[in-house]
Amino acid sequence: MGYVMKQEIKRRPFLKSLIGAGVATSLVHGQEKEEGTGEKDGKRIGWAIVGLSRLSERSIGPALKKTKHSKLTGIVTGTPEKARVWQKKYDVPDSGVYNYDNFDSMIDNPDIDVVYIVLPNSMHKEFTLRAAKAGKHVYVEKPMAITPGDCREMIAACDEAKVKLGVAYRLQFEPHHVEAMRFAREEVFGEVMHIDAGFGFRAGDPKQWRLKKAMGGGAMLDVGVYVIQACRYIYDEEPVSVSAVEVKTDKEKFAEVDETITWMMQFASGRTANLFTSFNMGGNNTMTVYGKKGCYGIKPCFGTGGQMGWTSDKEIPLSFPKTDHFKDQMDLFSEAIIDGKEWRVDGSEGLKDHLVMEAIFKSVVSGKVEMVGKVYA
Amino acid sequence: MGYVMKQEIKRRPFLKSLIGAGVATSLVHGQEKEEGTGEKDGKRIGWAIVGLSRLSERSIGPALKKTKHSKLTGIVTGTPEKARVWQKKYDVPDSGVYNYDNFDSMIDNPDIDVVYIVLPNSMHKEFTLRAAKAGKHVYVEKPMAITPGDCREMIAACDEAKVKLGVAYRLQFEPHHVEAMRFAREEVFGEVMHIDAGFGFRAGDPKQWRLKKAMGGGAMLDVGVYVIQACRYIYDEEPVSVSAVEVKTDKEKFAEVDETITWMMQFASGRTANLFTSFNMGGNNTMTVYGKKGCYGIKPCFGTGGQMGWTSDKEIPLSFPKTDHFKDQMDLFSEAIIDGKEWRVDGSEGLKDHLVMEAIFKSVVSGKVEMVGKVYA
Repeated sequence: MGYVMKQEIKRRPFLKSLIGAGVATSLVHGQEKEEGTGEKDGKRIGWAIVGLSRLSERSIGPALKKTKHSKLTGIVTGTPEKARVWQKKYDVPDSGVYNYDNFDSMIDNPDIDVVYIVLPNSMHKEFTLRAAKAGKHVYVEKPMAITPGDCREMIAACDEAKVKLGVAYRLQFEPHHVEAMRFAREEVFGEVMHIDAGFGFRAGDPKQWRLKKAMGGGAMLDVGVYVIQACRYIYDEEPVSVSAVEVKTDKEKFAEVDETITWMMQFASGRTANLFTSFNMGGNNTMTVYGKKGCYGIKPCFGTGGQMGWTSDKEIPLSFPKTDHFKDQMDLFSEAIIDGKEWRVDGSEGLKDHLVMEAIFKSVVSGKVEMVGKVYA
Repeated sequence: MGYVMKQEIKRRPFLKSLIGAGVATSLVHGQEKEEGTGEKDGKRIGWAIVGLSRLSERSIGPALKKTKHSKLTGIVTGTPEKARVWQKKYDVPDSGVYNYDNFDSMIDNPDIDVVYIVLPNSMHKEFTLRAAKAGKHVYVEKPMAITPGDCREMIAACDEAKVKLGVAYRLQFEPHHVEAMRFAREEVFGEVMHIDAGFGFRAGDPKQWRLKKAMGGGAMLDVGVYVIQACRYIYDEEPVSVSAVEVKTDKEKFAEVDETITWMMQFASGRTANLFTSFNMGGNNTMTVYGKKGCYGIKPCFGTGGQMGWTSDKEIPLSFPKTDHFKDQMDLFSEAIIDGKEWRVDGSEGLKDHLVMEAIFKSVVSGKVEMVGKVYA
């Protein structure tokens, strides 16, 4: 054990403070009050985006422009033409442009505080280790990596380099999800006992990296991870065992990766969850939480196009305006850096999800209920 | 094989005819046209209720009063005071009153055409066999029995006696469920691929028979069976394997029977279902069907208090007035008797659900994916 301890121990106190915290902007600070040096005003943390993918182009770049405490000061790409487009659009100086070879020289660039890794899943570990070595805080897209072992290495590297490691679980800061956590903590609908949830979409282009095993493809790692995360933060409890079945209807397109997995999770308290993920079915983008006295849900639940909530009690709404998930998570991470506060949605969160996924993949092969591995292995 | 063949073969033709059939009253006759002897007008089939339980008292008796082709002509009870109350309320002659000992003398009572068995689950088989021997058609509450073996015996006995055997799956005739079947058959929301469903309630009285193993208690047999049924009639396909986990939070109250089971079903076509049943949680009374182009659901889904439907397309409603499930199923069964037509929701339907439940109970113990047994064993 040891190296994840630091990140682990802060979870419970935080979650107590979550009760009543309400919305996203209060979420980073736990119970502590802002100490108010005033330094934060106007200060902006410099972010470098690694991988100028469609997600970077359509969501992360534009979101950075809306932040208060963040700015784009670096880009890492293997395509010089992309670099030129981004430089122009975001006013990135030549000194902030890197490729995958000279990435490590970022150590000498004081304008870059955080490296946001938006690469195919298989590259998350390598670039996290390199970023930590360059003394940069790391913000890594989900899934954190491919295996729990990767996560442990990434956590250790960031701990050693004394940099923060955040996993881009954007829904942790989305108001419907935050309220859903509060309902569970305060037992607004009684003790929460069961969750039905699923997230899937139809993968189009048969050549995309999401369909390649070596790149870390597959529905579970890509979108199933959201569903696992949601159960864990709604229940504030770790699953002890899982039972999973894989279904493959298109053996050619999904030759290398999982197309559809349905799985159940069991928690020590007796809570259960029935879950689903797919690269070959749209529509299933929902979560319903059943408490002993009523139920509530979010649908659409996991996408970036806006959430819609409902509850079994007309007097208790679950409805908030649409937010920019990327803007919120990045600015909160920047604030945590400025304030020197710990970051809640850290490597231990990624590790815990990967431990669950490891058990799911094991169950798919064994056809048996499999225990979820422990954080302190 | 052999003895269920007759009931089995009519399923597919029926389901073709279901397309476009719309609502319940068309459901009994398959593709055949009413042959129109006119005899049905005013004719009423005589029903005897076996077991004057709360269900009989609150639902079945009052429903019989609303039927067009059925009437209460017999009661079977071990409690003479109950018999007197019922005789008065429903105008049952002395000759129509039986107890569990003289039940078999019903063979001499021409006013009784159908015996409706509303006893604890463990007694369904015995009274089905005795009713068939007395030459009466049998209508049996769900679950049909306790094991697939029971179902096979019951089917064989009714086949041999040349009487009809109906299982009281009332939702087969409920308009929201009928429409949900049509959506699936016509692929109104694309090919249906996944179902999330659950049905549970909190069992009150710790002394009730539902908590006793010897009486056929437990959540799965009592309410889980609805969820299995629904998946089977939505998909019009039999599950090939299941994976199930039991959760027990109250080991005293649920010492003898299952409290909560979550399970998954896999179908040869690649369809999946994530399901849930519980005697210790209310609220979960829903079904969501995911097609490749959209989704729809019913919530509340399985109770008698009225269904509410929804779809992902505002232009396609899933909404019907509340119906009396008991009245509809009984009158349709009476009509099938009058018309000499086969009855679709027959013993083979019960057997198929029990084969699934057998695999679920096996999986709970083995912790493995279990294959569902075949109808033609």
